[in-house]
Amino acid sequence: MKIIFLGAGNLATNLALELHQKNFEIIQIFSRTLDAAKNLAEKVNAQYTNRLEELSEQADLYILAIKDDAIGSLLENLSLKNKLIVHTAGSISIDIFKNKALNYGVFYPLQTFTKNKKTDFSKIPICLEANSLENLQILKNVAQKLTSNVQILNSTQRKTIHLAGVFACNFTNHLLAIADEILENEQINLDILFPLINESIGKAQFEKPHKIQTGPAIRNDQKVLDSHLALLEKNTTFVEIYKLLSKSIFNFSQNKQ
Amino acid sequence: MKIIFLGAGNLATNLALELHQKNFEIIQIFSRTLDAAKNLAEKVNAQYTNRLEELSEQADLYILAIKDDAIGSLLENLSLKNKLIVHTAGSISIDIFKNKALNYGVFYPLQTFTKNKKTDFSKIPICLEANSLENLQILKNVAQKLTSNVQILNSTQRKTIHLAGVFACNFTNHLLAIADEILENEQINLDILFPLINESIGKAQFEKPHKIQTGPAIRNDQKVLDSHLALLEKNTTFVEIYKLLSKSIFNFSQNKQ
Repeated sequence: MKIIFLGAGNLATNLALELHQKNFEIIQIFSRTLDAAKNLAEKVNAQYTNRLEELSEQADLYILAIKDDAIGSLLENLSLKNKLIVHTAGSISIDIFKNKALNYGVFYPLQTFTKNKKTDFSKIPICLEANSLENLQILKNVAQKLTSNVQILNSTQRKTIHLAGVFACNFTNHLLAIADEILENEQINLDILFPLINESIGKAQFEKPHKIQTGPAIRNDQKVLDSHLALLEKNTTFVEIYKLLSKSIFNFSQNKQ
Repeated sequence: MKIIFLGAGNLATNLALELHQKNFEIIQIFSRTLDAAKNLAEKVNAQYTNRLEELSEQADLYILAIKDDAIGSLLENLSLKNKLIVHTAGSISIDIFKNKALNYGVFYPLQTFTKNKKTDFSKIPICLEANSLENLQILKNVAQKLTSNVQILNSTQRKTIHLAGVFACNFTNHLLAIADEILENEQINLDILFPLINESIGKAQFEKPHKIQTGPAIRNDQKVLDSHLALLEKNTTFVEIYKLLSKSIFNFSQNKQ
């Protein structure tokens, strides 16, 4: 199976390397940034271009791995005839391909990627959707070579997962950034918290998170809450976040009873 | 060294079991709840009581592991003479012992404990403070038998760590609870997110969290932000949290540039 990548960012790089390693033939990399295209192309032994007009018609699968908001306009300028094209974006509906392609789908690896760190795909959920059972089967055959965790999800489910991922990962990471900032004021390294963080995240994989909630907010321990707010007072945003999340923890626990 | 525990909750249970296993002699467990005292006492081969008057004077170290807001009133009714007493609370200053004891300190294992799950202490930071170098040395000798990660911290630093831990663990767990709730509406299990969550938390142990922030908020991707808010609309608290954390992520990244 011959594959072309449109995009050469973190996701494209990791996915292309993985497919290359699993003996799929990557024949071309397209990117608006020629250097990025070249860089990735050399790693997977492919041609490269930064001009859509030079896109090869010889591939069986076109993988769109560009910024979410660039997908629409790129599709305007793409003519794929009956070739199978997929995007890799959690929050974009499959319908973006309607009237733009005949065979299309979504190939969404639910993971965060770093360019210079090889990702282990074997346990990553790859979420698939396609406009026909035939196309879904083609995508399944590809995904199953990469992971044991293939998920067939519609666009609403995928969008919901993407939203949940914002809470569970993006927002969580920001809370770690805030913790880091708070500790820096006392010249303490964030490292000291990781045994606690890892234990806490580990627990949530075996029990419903709301059932293992701890801390002053769920106990409504006003004394500790007040002393924390006093410590934070210089940073009004941190105070707001502290108050809102504490209130939410308490209300959530009341509603779940 | 003979040790008495005041308290028989999660922390007391885990710490007593660990000390017992490391050949410290636990001679007595006090708890207001007699059953809890008895239960723990049997596991570590100790006496037990629910009456402060029956507290033995034979111990070298008294470990207070009760609710934060119960420490003050318990100390009112305790007469320890020159015996060494410590509390185990992150957010309580060492000064709570002033005029209540002659030899005192803090012995704070920075971890979250579950009664029925044995904790591995070997990498847990144990944060120590004492009213004299001599007492600090005694506590150090105990802590070093349990972990390679002994930290000498003053009350302000400990309070700061406790506050940072609320952000990094309590709030983080709540975000997982919200993610779980969001997914439940589409009959999706939170499990699907854990490869992503683990990768995200793992990354933050090697790079400053604010440097690896991803997601629509840091890109100020208004289209995705709006579509997420539309999905959340039924739950006003989730909407508020989404807006506040997204704003904070964006502002934080601007300020750090």
